Amino acid sequence: MSKVNIKVLAEQLQLSVSTISKALRDSYEISDETKKKVLELASQLNYVPNPYASSLRKKKSKTIAVVLPEVADNFFSLAINGIQSIAETKGYHVLIYLSHEKYANEKTILEDCQSGRVDGVLISISSETNTADHIKRLQAQNIPLVFFDREQEGIETARVTTNDFECGLLAANHLLQRGCRKPAFVSISQSLPICLNRMEGFKAALLQAGIPEMDIQTIYCTDDDSMNHQIKTILQSPDRPDGLIASVEKIVTPVYLACHELKINIPNDIKVIAFATLDTAPILNPPLTTITQPAFEIGKAAATLLFKGIEKSTFDLRKEKVVIPSALFERESTRGLTS
Amino acid sequence: MSKVNIKVLAEQLQLSVSTISKALRDSYEISDETKKKVLELASQLNYVPNPYASSLRKKKSKTIAVVLPEVADNFFSLAINGIQSIAETKGYHVLIYLSHEKYANEKTILEDCQSGRVDGVLISISSETNTADHIKRLQAQNIPLVFFDREQEGIETARVTTNDFECGLLAANHLLQRGCRKPAFVSISQSLPICLNRMEGFKAALLQAGIPEMDIQTIYCTDDDSMNHQIKTILQSPDRPDGLIASVEKIVTPVYLACHELKINIPNDIKVIAFATLDTAPILNPPLTTITQPAFEIGKAAATLLFKGIEKSTFDLRKEKVVIPSALFERESTRGLTS
Repeated sequence: MSKVNIKVLAEQLQLSVSTISKALRDSYEISDETKKKVLELASQLNYVPNPYASSLRKKKSKTIAVVLPEVADNFFSLAINGIQSIAETKGYHVLIYLSHEKYANEKTILEDCQSGRVDGVLISISSETNTADHIKRLQAQNIPLVFFDREQEGIETARVTTNDFECGLLAANHLLQRGCRKPAFVSISQSLPICLNRMEGFKAALLQAGIPEMDIQTIYCTDDDSMNHQIKTILQSPDRPDGLIASVEKIVTPVYLACHELKINIPNDIKVIAFATLDTAPILNPPLTTITQPAFEIGKAAATLLFKGIEKSTFDLRKEKVVIPSALFERESTRGLTS
Repeated sequence: MSKVNIKVLAEQLQLSVSTISKALRDSYEISDETKKKVLELASQLNYVPNPYASSLRKKKSKTIAVVLPEVADNFFSLAINGIQSIAETKGYHVLIYLSHEKYANEKTILEDCQSGRVDGVLISISSETNTADHIKRLQAQNIPLVFFDREQEGIETARVTTNDFECGLLAANHLLQRGCRKPAFVSISQSLPICLNRMEGFKAALLQAGIPEMDIQTIYCTDDDSMNHQIKTILQSPDRPDGLIASVEKIVTPVYLACHELKINIPNDIKVIAFATLDTAPILNPPLTTITQPAFEIGKAAATLLFKGIEKSTFDLRKEKVVIPSALFERESTRGLTS
């Protein structure tokens, strides 16, 4: 079956292409009788309007882009669901792009987003990104952009995050209360604000507790491939920490596997707390204490702001900053000797 | 900064729009000198071609759709990564649509895909879908479609799946070998071929082992919200199974949580095996025996076939059927009394 377009309808009804087009748009120039004929044939032949032609006319793609480091992470998959829940009500499509944690990919993606393919961009930046130029070029094209979770400093636009500093503080104080004397913070980036803010909170708690700055351990696992090896090295060091804060979800499995292999007992030898939305947290061995981010709500709030920016050119995205707090779920992995 | 388009370039260089357009397409009709001038200005003004205009000319959207039940599932997120790995090499975009396991959503999505927005569709159908009409309408528009993982019978097109029947057999035989006498199969759909095939394999193994058909338990948890309750009911029934096969990943957490709550020991009281690509499987309490599908490879193979269908109109997708085998990873959750 060949594609049914306006031309086919025009030929079959012996009318001009422009008459068909006007009839389909319900123009006052066309008689009701003609409209009826056109619509009947269109329905009969299963005619579908071409959205590209339609987008060109309206200058709207009815599509938003979501630029993410990865989807194999519960936080991002839940955030996507939150974004989709809003996009659906607006009749928008969601184009999902993955940067795979590479700045070069993110740059190419944003160049592509400049081209009219999308009406707005939601972005959570890669762990490698430490410049804002590629984002500024997108803004120069008047394409609304909203950060969610992982923002980039130096850009004036809306951001939806969680209270990372406070949660770093909370996680560290939790470990201290459960008896840790030398907890360490495991990060995946030296530049991502989420990691930096969580780490600053962690450091602030330790300093407050009288632990000297030189004794505060922060560990960087910036490469997925070597993460298992790096974590084992930390756990075998003479100065082994007695508590670990995993700054993101993907650190959890390597930490647990290394502890199991090295016969390091969680929580007796080392307590573990993770920033994670893992639904398996309560069934891990042992159940994992988490700082759980409101991923779905963050996605929803970011999409809501973006659509305000798309729909009203007078809406000033630069003034918007939403912080949705995370919550601590205490489980076995941080059980103290006294509890 | 206002949008730079061909018209702006034409005005600034005092050339016609058609000359600019030809120069940008490197047409032989335009002198090298003019081309140089146009390209210099285009680069200077950060001109980006409009893909919709370009798509209309070439009748290609350079986009493929991936229609999925959900992304909060490791199988699908890994499959997306496999799909993206191929799409990137082809210079294609991937538009991800979620059906949220609803047939109505899937139908609307495929209607949208008919409209020229995408050049091809990769689909893993929702657990509710038991008709093929919406898919046939898409095919009638000559849009290539490839099934991956969850296929719909009655449609002639390429499919990439894993060896579901054999794996159902393998899982059941594994439970029987570890001492189970009344294992049950937990499904999420009465129509999804992946569930049906896995269940048929399970039944075949039990019949071979001399278990009467009337004693073979198959359980349907078709609603996410009531899954926890349903699983608890099964585990508290007088005829409690001594082994469970979870046909998909999302059954795992409710099963473990219910067992923990009801003090039913895995593997002593009940053995559990799941079709899952969970990276936390080895750190669960107890570590979970899995039938692990080659999700990334399935995504890659499906995308490879789809691009063949898009690029060569003579390539007959109907003849293609790829089966990529899954593997059993034995862990603590199915440990037998003798092992």
